[in-house]
Amino acid sequence: MTDLVEKTLHSKTIFEGKVIDLRVDTVELPNGETSTREIVKHPGAVAVIALTDEGKLVLVQQYRKPLEKLLFEIPAGKLDPGEALETCALRELEEETGYRCRSIEHVVSFYTSPGFSDELIHIYFTDTLIRGERHLDEDEFLENYEVDLQEALQLLKEKKIDDAKTVYAVQYLQMQQ
Amino acid sequence: MTDLVEKTLHSKTIFEGKVIDLRVDTVELPNGETSTREIVKHPGAVAVIALTDEGKLVLVQQYRKPLEKLLFEIPAGKLDPGEALETCALRELEEETGYRCRSIEHVVSFYTSPGFSDELIHIYFTDTLIRGERHLDEDEFLENYEVDLQEALQLLKEKKIDDAKTVYAVQYLQMQQ
Repeated sequence: MTDLVEKTLHSKTIFEGKVIDLRVDTVELPNGETSTREIVKHPGAVAVIALTDEGKLVLVQQYRKPLEKLLFEIPAGKLDPGEALETCALRELEEETGYRCRSIEHVVSFYTSPGFSDELIHIYFTDTLIRGERHLDEDEFLENYEVDLQEALQLLKEKKIDDAKTVYAVQYLQMQQ
Repeated sequence: MTDLVEKTLHSKTIFEGKVIDLRVDTVELPNGETSTREIVKHPGAVAVIALTDEGKLVLVQQYRKPLEKLLFEIPAGKLDPGEALETCALRELEEETGYRCRSIEHVVSFYTSPGFSDELIHIYFTDTLIRGERHLDEDEFLENYEVDLQEALQLLKEKKIDDAKTVYAVQYLQMQQ
Protein backbone atom coordinates (compact mmCIF):
# COMPACT_ATOMS: atom_id res chain seq x y z
CA MET A 1 0.00 0.00 0.00
CA THR A 2 1.21 3.49 -0.86
CA ASP A 3 1.41 5.69 2.21
CA LEU A 4 -1.84 7.65 2.00
CA VAL A 5 -1.55 9.40 5.37
CA GLU A 6 -1.82 13.20 5.54
CA LYS A 7 0.45 14.83 8.12
CA THR A 8 -0.84 17.85 10.05
CA LEU A 9 1.39 20.91 9.58
CA HIS A 10 -0.89 23.40 11.30
CA SER A 11 -4.32 23.38 12.91
CA LYS A 12 -6.50 26.46 13.35
CA THR A 13 -9.68 26.55 15.43
CA ILE A 14 -12.35 28.60 13.63
CA PHE A 15 -15.39 28.10 15.87
CA GLU A 16 -16.38 26.40 19.12
CA GLY A 17 -20.13 25.94 19.41
CA LYS A 18 -22.63 24.17 21.63
CA VAL A 19 -22.90 21.19 19.25
CA ILE A 20 -19.95 21.36 16.84
CA ASP A 21 -16.47 22.84 16.59
CA LEU A 22 -14.79 23.78 13.31
CA ARG A 23 -11.08 23.78 12.58
CA VAL A 24 -8.97 24.01 9.44
CA ASP A 25 -5.90 21.79 9.23
CA THR A 26 -3.04 22.47 6.84
CA VAL A 27 -1.72 19.07 5.77
CA GLU A 28 1.20 17.59 3.91
CA LEU A 29 -0.15 15.31 1.17
CA PRO A 30 1.48 11.99 0.26
CA ASN A 31 3.26 13.71 -2.68
CA GLY A 32 4.77 16.39 -0.42
CA GLU A 33 2.42 19.19 -1.53
CA THR A 34 0.30 21.02 1.04
CA SER A 35 -3.48 21.39 1.18
CA THR A 36 -6.15 22.29 3.73
CA ARG A 37 -8.87 20.16 5.32
CA GLU A 38 -12.01 21.66 6.88
CA ILE A 39 -12.98 19.55 9.87
CA VAL A 40 -16.19 19.60 11.94
CA LYS A 41 -15.82 18.02 15.38
CA HIS A 42 -18.97 16.41 16.81
CA PRO A 43 -19.48 14.53 20.12
CA GLY A 44 -21.05 11.51 18.39
CA ALA A 45 -24.61 10.23 18.55
CA VAL A 46 -26.76 7.20 19.25
CA ALA A 47 -29.98 6.13 17.47
CA VAL A 48 -32.46 3.35 18.21
CA ILE A 49 -34.41 1.10 15.84
CA ALA A 50 -37.32 0.39 18.19
CA LEU A 51 -40.12 -2.02 17.26
CA THR A 52 -43.43 -2.15 19.16
CA ASP A 53 -45.15 -5.42 20.11
CA GLU A 54 -47.14 -5.00 16.86
CA GLY A 55 -43.89 -4.83 14.87
CA LYS A 56 -44.22 -1.12 14.16
CA LEU A 57 -41.18 1.16 13.87
CA VAL A 58 -41.09 4.05 16.37
CA LEU A 59 -40.40 7.40 14.69
CA VAL A 60 -40.16 11.00 15.80
CA GLN A 61 -41.05 13.89 13.54
CA GLN A 62 -39.03 17.05 14.01
CA TYR A 63 -38.05 20.22 12.24
CA ARG A 64 -34.50 20.19 10.93
CA LYS A 65 -33.26 23.74 10.59
CA PRO A 66 -30.37 22.93 8.17
CA LEU A 67 -32.95 21.50 5.73
CA GLU A 68 -35.82 23.84 6.64
CA LYS A 69 -38.17 20.87 6.67
CA LEU A 70 -39.81 18.24 8.87
CA LEU A 71 -38.31 14.75 8.86
CA PHE A 72 -39.46 11.44 10.28
CA GLU A 73 -36.46 9.86 12.04
CA ILE A 74 -35.69 7.07 14.43
CA PRO A 75 -35.12 8.38 17.98
CA ALA A 76 -31.57 9.67 18.39
CA GLY A 77 -29.41 12.14 20.19
CA LYS A 78 -25.93 13.33 20.97
CA LEU A 79 -23.69 11.63 23.49
CA ASP A 80 -23.18 13.52 26.74
CA PRO A 81 -19.49 13.84 27.77
CA GLY A 82 -18.29 10.49 29.11
CA GLU A 83 -21.68 8.83 28.62
CA ALA A 84 -21.75 5.10 27.79
CA LEU A 85 -23.32 4.32 24.40
CA GLU A 86 -26.06 2.06 25.73
CA THR A 87 -26.94 4.56 28.49
CA CYS A 88 -27.33 7.22 25.79
CA ALA A 89 -29.49 4.92 23.67
CA LEU A 90 -31.84 4.17 26.58
CA ARG A 91 -31.95 7.83 27.63
CA GLU A 92 -32.73 9.21 24.16
CA LEU A 93 -35.36 6.53 23.52
CA GLU A 94 -37.15 7.39 26.76
CA GLU A 95 -36.76 11.17 26.43
CA GLU A 96 -38.08 11.30 22.88
CA THR A 97 -40.71 8.55 22.90
CA GLY A 98 -41.49 7.66 26.51
CA TYR A 99 -40.48 4.06 25.84
CA ARG A 100 -38.12 2.13 28.07
CA CYS A 101 -37.03 -1.39 27.10
CA ARG A 102 -36.03 -4.68 28.70
CA SER A 103 -33.04 -5.26 26.41
CA ILE A 104 -31.19 -3.47 23.65
CA GLU A 105 -28.44 -4.55 21.27
CA HIS A 106 -25.83 -2.78 19.15
CA VAL A 107 -26.36 -3.15 15.38
CA VAL A 108 -23.73 -1.02 13.66
CA SER A 109 -21.82 2.26 13.97
CA PHE A 110 -20.88 4.53 11.09
CA TYR A 111 -19.30 7.90 10.36
CA THR A 112 -21.93 10.07 8.73
CA SER A 113 -19.61 12.33 6.66
CA PRO A 114 -16.00 11.18 6.84
CA GLY A 115 -14.89 13.82 4.32
CA PHE A 116 -15.46 16.74 6.66
CA SER A 117 -16.70 15.49 10.05
CA ASP A 118 -15.79 13.01 12.79
CA GLU A 119 -19.45 12.41 13.74
CA LEU A 120 -19.90 8.71 14.57
CA ILE A 121 -23.42 7.40 15.08
CA HIS A 122 -24.14 4.14 16.90
CA ILE A 123 -27.31 2.30 15.92
CA TYR A 124 -29.09 0.09 18.47
CA PHE A 125 -32.09 -2.25 18.16
CA THR A 126 -34.83 -3.21 20.59
CA ASP A 127 -38.19 -4.95 20.33
CA THR A 128 -38.84 -5.19 24.07
CA LEU A 129 -40.51 -1.83 24.68
CA ILE A 130 -42.28 -0.76 27.88
CA ARG A 131 -44.51 2.29 27.59
CA GLY A 132 -43.73 5.25 29.87
CA GLU A 133 -43.72 9.04 29.60
CA ARG A 134 -41.47 11.17 27.43
CA HIS A 135 -39.60 14.25 28.69
CA LEU A 136 -37.99 16.37 25.97
CA ASP A 137 -35.07 18.78 26.19
CA GLU A 138 -36.18 22.39 26.56
CA ASP A 139 -35.28 23.30 22.96
CA GLU A 140 -36.66 20.05 21.48
CA PHE A 141 -40.08 19.82 19.84
CA LEU A 142 -41.25 16.63 18.20
CA GLU A 143 -44.20 14.37 17.48
CA ASN A 144 -44.28 10.57 17.89
CA TYR A 145 -45.41 8.08 15.26
CA GLU A 146 -45.42 4.31 14.85
CA VAL A 147 -45.43 2.89 11.33
CA ASP A 148 -45.39 -0.56 9.76
CA LEU A 149 -42.88 -1.45 7.04
CA GLN A 150 -45.25 -0.49 4.20
CA GLU A 151 -45.87 2.93 5.76
CA ALA A 152 -42.13 3.39 6.31
CA LEU A 153 -41.45 2.59 2.64
CA GLN A 154 -44.13 5.10 1.63
CA LEU A 155 -42.51 7.81 3.81
CA LEU A 156 -39.18 6.96 2.18
CA LYS A 157 -40.73 7.34 -1.28
CA GLU A 158 -42.22 10.71 -0.29
CA LYS A 159 -38.83 11.89 1.04
CA LYS A 160 -40.25 12.31 4.56
CA ILE A 161 -37.83 9.63 5.71
CA ASP A 162 -34.72 11.18 4.28
CA ASP A 163 -31.72 10.79 6.56
CA ALA A 164 -28.90 8.22 6.78
CA LYS A 165 -29.77 6.52 10.07
CA THR A 166 -33.49 6.19 9.28
CA VAL A 167 -32.94 5.02 5.68
CA TYR A 168 -30.58 2.42 7.18
CA ALA A 169 -33.26 1.46 9.74
CA VAL A 170 -35.89 0.89 7.04
CA GLN A 171 -33.46 -1.27 5.05
CA TYR A 172 -32.66 -3.18 8.28
CA LEU A 173 -36.37 -3.86 8.81
CA GLN A 174 -36.76 -5.07 5.23
CA MET A 175 -33.98 -7.58 5.84
CA GLN A 176 -35.78 -8.99 8.92
CA GLN A 177 -38.91 -9.84 6.87
CA MET B 1 -49.79 18.32 14.08
CA THR B 2 -48.35 20.92 16.40
CA ASP B 3 -46.44 23.57 14.47
CA LEU B 4 -42.83 22.38 14.84
CA VAL B 5 -41.26 24.94 12.52
CA GLU B 6 -38.39 27.12 13.76
CA LYS B 7 -38.41 30.69 12.45
CA THR B 8 -35.08 32.35 11.63
CA LEU B 9 -34.58 35.58 13.60
CA HIS B 10 -30.97 36.15 12.63
CA SER B 11 -28.32 34.36 10.57
CA LYS B 12 -24.58 34.87 11.00
CA THR B 13 -21.95 33.52 8.61
CA ILE B 14 -18.97 32.21 10.59
CA PHE B 15 -16.84 30.64 7.84
CA GLU B 16 -16.78 30.18 4.09
CA GLY B 17 -14.43 27.39 3.02
CA LYS B 18 -13.55 25.43 -0.10
CA VAL B 19 -15.85 22.52 0.87
CA ILE B 20 -18.17 23.76 3.62
CA ASP B 21 -19.61 26.98 5.00
CA LEU B 22 -20.68 27.46 8.61
CA ARG B 23 -23.39 29.78 9.91
CA VAL B 24 -25.23 30.17 13.20
CA ASP B 25 -28.94 30.89 13.05
CA THR B 26 -30.85 32.38 15.95
CA VAL B 27 -34.32 30.83 15.84
CA GLU B 28 -37.71 31.25 17.45
CA LEU B 29 -38.81 27.89 18.84
CA PRO B 30 -42.43 26.67 18.65
CA ASN B 31 -42.96 27.81 22.28
CA GLY B 32 -41.78 31.37 21.53
CA GLU B 33 -38.36 30.99 23.20
CA THR B 34 -35.17 31.59 21.22
CA SER B 35 -32.25 29.24 20.60
CA THR B 36 -29.34 28.90 18.19
CA ARG B 37 -28.65 26.32 15.46
CA GLU B 38 -25.17 25.64 14.10
CA ILE B 39 -25.45 24.84 10.40
CA VAL B 40 -22.83 23.42 8.02
CA LYS B 41 -23.64 24.04 4.35
CA HIS B 42 -22.31 21.43 1.92
CA PRO B 43 -22.72 21.20 -1.90
CA GLY B 44 -24.03 17.61 -1.76
CA ALA B 45 -22.42 14.42 -2.97
CA VAL B 46 -22.91 11.35 -5.13
CA ALA B 47 -21.71 7.80 -4.47
CA VAL B 48 -21.79 4.66 -6.61
CA ILE B 49 -22.40 1.03 -5.66
CA ALA B 50 -20.47 -0.54 -8.55
CA LEU B 51 -20.34 -4.30 -9.11
CA THR B 52 -17.81 -5.93 -11.43
CA ASP B 53 -18.73 -8.75 -13.83
CA GLU B 54 -17.59 -11.14 -11.08
CA GLY B 55 -20.09 -9.54 -8.65
CA LYS B 56 -17.39 -7.80 -6.63
CA LEU B 57 -17.96 -4.42 -4.98
CA VAL B 58 -15.60 -1.66 -6.11
CA LEU B 59 -14.01 0.21 -3.19
CA VAL B 60 -11.50 2.99 -2.79
CA GLN B 61 -9.24 3.26 0.22
CA GLN B 62 -8.37 6.77 1.34
CA TYR B 63 -7.14 8.68 4.35
CA ARG B 64 -9.85 10.62 6.11
CA LYS B 65 -8.29 13.50 8.01
CA PRO B 66 -11.26 14.11 10.36
CA LEU B 67 -10.89 10.51 11.61
CA GLU B 68 -7.09 10.27 11.18
CA LYS B 69 -7.53 6.85 9.62
CA LEU B 70 -7.84 4.97 6.35
CA LEU B 71 -11.33 3.89 5.27
CA PHE B 72 -12.60 1.63 2.50
CA GLU B 73 -15.49 3.45 0.82
CA ILE B 74 -17.58 3.20 -2.31
CA PRO B 75 -16.46 5.76 -4.94
CA ALA B 76 -17.96 9.17 -4.20
CA GLY B 77 -17.44 12.87 -4.52
CA LYS B 78 -18.91 16.31 -4.19
CA LEU B 79 -21.25 17.82 -6.77
CA ASP B 80 -19.76 20.57 -8.90
CA PRO B 81 -21.92 23.73 -9.11
CA GLY B 82 -24.87 23.05 -11.42
CA GLU B 83 -23.75 19.50 -12.18
CA ALA B 84 -26.44 16.87 -12.86
CA LEU B 85 -26.46 14.01 -10.34
CA GLU B 86 -25.90 11.24 -12.87
CA THR B 87 -23.09 13.19 -14.55
CA CYS B 88 -21.39 13.51 -11.16
CA ALA B 89 -21.87 9.78 -10.47
CA LEU B 90 -20.26 8.81 -13.79
CA ARG B 91 -17.46 11.38 -13.35
CA GLU B 92 -16.53 10.31 -9.82
CA LEU B 93 -16.67 6.62 -10.70
CA GLU B 94 -14.29 7.14 -13.62
CA GLU B 95 -11.97 9.58 -11.79
CA GLU B 96 -11.55 7.37 -8.73
CA THR B 97 -11.63 3.86 -10.26
CA GLY B 98 -11.12 4.17 -14.01
CA TYR B 99 -14.44 2.44 -14.63
CA ARG B 100 -17.06 3.78 -16.98
CA CYS B 101 -20.43 2.03 -17.27
CA ARG B 102 -23.17 1.35 -19.81
CA SER B 103 -26.04 2.21 -17.47
CA ILE B 104 -26.54 3.52 -13.96
CA GLU B 105 -29.60 3.86 -11.74
CA HIS B 106 -30.53 5.94 -8.71
CA VAL B 107 -31.05 3.89 -5.53
CA VAL B 108 -31.69 6.36 -2.70
CA SER B 109 -30.67 9.78 -1.41
CA PHE B 110 -30.22 10.72 2.23
CA TYR B 111 -29.09 13.58 4.45
CA THR B 112 -26.03 12.43 6.32
CA SER B 113 -26.42 14.61 9.45
CA PRO B 114 -29.72 16.52 9.45
CA GLY B 115 -29.07 17.91 12.94
CA PHE B 116 -26.24 20.18 11.83
CA SER B 117 -25.67 19.86 8.07
CA ASP B 118 -27.57 20.04 4.79
CA GLU B 119 -25.29 17.50 3.09
CA LEU B 120 -27.41 15.26 0.85
CA ILE B 121 -25.79 12.20 -0.70
CA HIS B 122 -27.25 10.44 -3.73
CA ILE B 123 -26.49 6.74 -4.08
CA TYR B 124 -26.37 5.13 -7.55
CA PHE B 125 -25.96 1.51 -8.66
CA THR B 126 -24.31 -0.05 -11.69
CA ASP B 127 -23.24 -3.54 -12.68
CA THR B 128 -22.32 -2.70 -16.29
CA LEU B 129 -18.71 -1.60 -15.82
CA ILE B 130 -16.21 -0.95 -18.60
CA ARG B 131 -12.57 -0.79 -17.55
CA GLY B 132 -10.66 2.42 -18.35
CA GLU B 133 -8.11 4.64 -16.63
CA ARG B 134 -8.53 6.65 -13.47
CA HIS B 135 -7.48 10.30 -13.13
CA LEU B 136 -7.57 11.66 -9.59
CA ASP B 137 -7.90 15.24 -8.35
CA GLU B 138 -4.54 16.79 -7.50
CA ASP B 139 -5.14 16.60 -3.72
CA GLU B 140 -6.66 13.10 -3.88
CA PHE B 141 -4.72 9.94 -3.06
CA LEU B 142 -6.41 6.56 -2.98
CA GLU B 143 -6.05 2.86 -3.68
CA ASN B 144 -8.56 0.67 -5.54
CA TYR B 145 -9.95 -2.65 -4.28
CA GLU B 146 -12.64 -5.09 -5.37
CA VAL B 147 -14.21 -7.31 -2.73
CA ASP B 148 -16.90 -9.97 -2.62
CA LEU B 149 -19.72 -9.82 -0.07
CA GLN B 150 -17.87 -11.97 2.49
CA GLU B 151 -14.80 -9.74 2.27
CA ALA B 152 -17.00 -6.64 2.58
CA LEU B 153 -18.65 -8.07 5.71
CA GLN B 154 -15.19 -8.81 7.15
CA LEU B 155 -14.06 -5.19 6.48
CA LEU B 156 -17.27 -4.00 8.19
CA LYS B 157 -16.50 -6.18 11.21
CA GLU B 158 -12.94 -4.80 11.36
CA LYS B 159 -14.26 -1.20 11.18
CA LYS B 160 -12.40 -0.60 7.92
CA ILE B 161 -15.76 -0.10 6.23
CA ASP B 162 -17.09 2.46 8.65
CA ASP B 163 -19.09 5.20 6.94
CA ALA B 164 -22.79 5.69 6.23
CA LYS B 165 -22.81 5.30 2.44
CA THR B 166 -20.58 2.22 2.42
CA VAL B 167 -22.38 0.51 5.32
CA TYR B 168 -25.58 1.14 3.36
CA ALA B 169 -23.97 -0.31 0.22
CA VAL B 170 -22.97 -3.53 2.00
CA GLN B 171 -26.50 -3.94 3.38
CA TYR B 172 -27.85 -3.27 -0.14
CA LEU B 173 -25.65 -6.07 -1.52
CA GLN B 174 -26.81 -8.45 1.20
CA MET B 175 -30.40 -7.78 0.13
CA GLN B 176 -29.60 -8.69 -3.49
CA GLN B 177 -28.36 -12.19 -2.48
